[in-house]
Amino acid sequence: MAARVVNDMRATASKPFSEAERRAVYRAIHERRDIRSQFLPDEVPPRVLGRILDAAHHGPSVGFMQPWDFIVIRDPAVRLAVRDCFLEANRRASEIYGGERRALYDSLKLEGLREAPVHLCVTCDRLRQKGSGLGRQTDPSTDLYSTVCAVQNLWLAARAEDLGVGWVSILDFDALRNQIGIPPHVVPVAYLCIGYVSEFPASPALESDGWETREGLAGLIHFDRWNSRDESQASELIEGAAR
Amino acid sequence: MAARVVNDMRATASKPFSEAERRAVYRAIHERRDIRSQFLPDEVPPRVLGRILDAAHHGPSVGFMQPWDFIVIRDPAVRLAVRDCFLEANRRASEIYGGERRALYDSLKLEGLREAPVHLCVTCDRLRQKGSGLGRQTDPSTDLYSTVCAVQNLWLAARAEDLGVGWVSILDFDALRNQIGIPPHVVPVAYLCIGYVSEFPASPALESDGWETREGLAGLIHFDRWNSRDESQASELIEGAAR
Repeated sequence: MAARVVNDMRATASKPFSEAERRAVYRAIHERRDIRSQFLPDEVPPRVLGRILDAAHHGPSVGFMQPWDFIVIRDPAVRLAVRDCFLEANRRASEIYGGERRALYDSLKLEGLREAPVHLCVTCDRLRQKGSGLGRQTDPSTDLYSTVCAVQNLWLAARAEDLGVGWVSILDFDALRNQIGIPPHVVPVAYLCIGYVSEFPASPALESDGWETREGLAGLIHFDRWNSRDESQASELIEGAAR
Repeated sequence: MAARVVNDMRATASKPFSEAERRAVYRAIHERRDIRSQFLPDEVPPRVLGRILDAAHHGPSVGFMQPWDFIVIRDPAVRLAVRDCFLEANRRASEIYGGERRALYDSLKLEGLREAPVHLCVTCDRLRQKGSGLGRQTDPSTDLYSTVCAVQNLWLAARAEDLGVGWVSILDFDALRNQIGIPPHVVPVAYLCIGYVSEFPASPALESDGWETREGLAGLIHFDRWNSRDESQASELIEGAAR
């Protein structure tokens, strides 16, 4: 009976994706945004939050190490303290810019910590023994990379749940560690704001705000060796990507 | 006219995901595998490769920095040289294990470099000026993290295209840099094998091979602070995740 169940799962897993399924995956990828300004106060149902956490937990991990933990933050006092971690870090960050760039930087909304109903800190336990070090000896960053894969799974699952996610990297991380008690061997990889949104903007905020432009994909493609270009091969690839 | 187009895109972007679309995204997440043993020699059409590269290029990046490059490797000589980078690294890696664990390690197939028709090296240019450093001052790893998000986008898009992907982290990276000419300020974040597959296994290979087990999600969830547990809240989340 157990074998039967396994076989059925295998058969399901091998059925090709339909055109509609494929489109849905690309839709999540292309319509995902880093949300700072559009959060609504509506509660995120626990079952929905559970589903996107489970999506994260099904990310790939080096040696099947699963180095991640998830800290779900809803306590108003903790939320407020984390907002302070942002304000102080952002004040220092803006000082490296001058003139018009500084004015533009100061006008940007870079987080939605007050508005988003859920904060989530995704961490990487660098001493986790699971996986027995398989795949990690040649690149010690692979546990951090695994954790980021989990974050991106969650981000795309959230988009499919019509939930916005914003990744706040401008934080005083020492102060954050103190506030939520993260031990030294654990790295807070991502601090995320999560909630329903009034809309998903058509473009990244930093693009529509005039901070940065999208790079052309063709210029980022090399063949066989670094800096070995092939315009005709690159064009052939890029044409396929046109939607 | 331009404003009209933008408005239409915005409207499309804000239409809720249907139940079928949501299921498709979760299907890609749950049926994605790290493929080593199931690659077929079938050619990957350029338009399909272009689509998954474009998916990677639409990953989130700190400050909209887009620090990635893509080296598409099909030259048999380069492929062979990279396989040597694996063999040497893997010989050294197996030496840390003893007894049964060593025998198990040596029995694992950890890459599909010979079988997969396409190799792809995804890199992170740590000196790229795009984004003007926004979001990076507090955590210098965020450019690497952005590159990993691009990799995970590609991995899920590939699954929706019925393409298998295997991430080979056991490599002599100095030798790899020499082989494909990667300059010192660029980090080879992921070396991927890509191709069609005979099947997508129901479980991760390291699980079915007996190397490691899947962690329970509930034990990885904390509330408001590290190590602050709440069994009833965790259960409520986990029940929602049950498929």
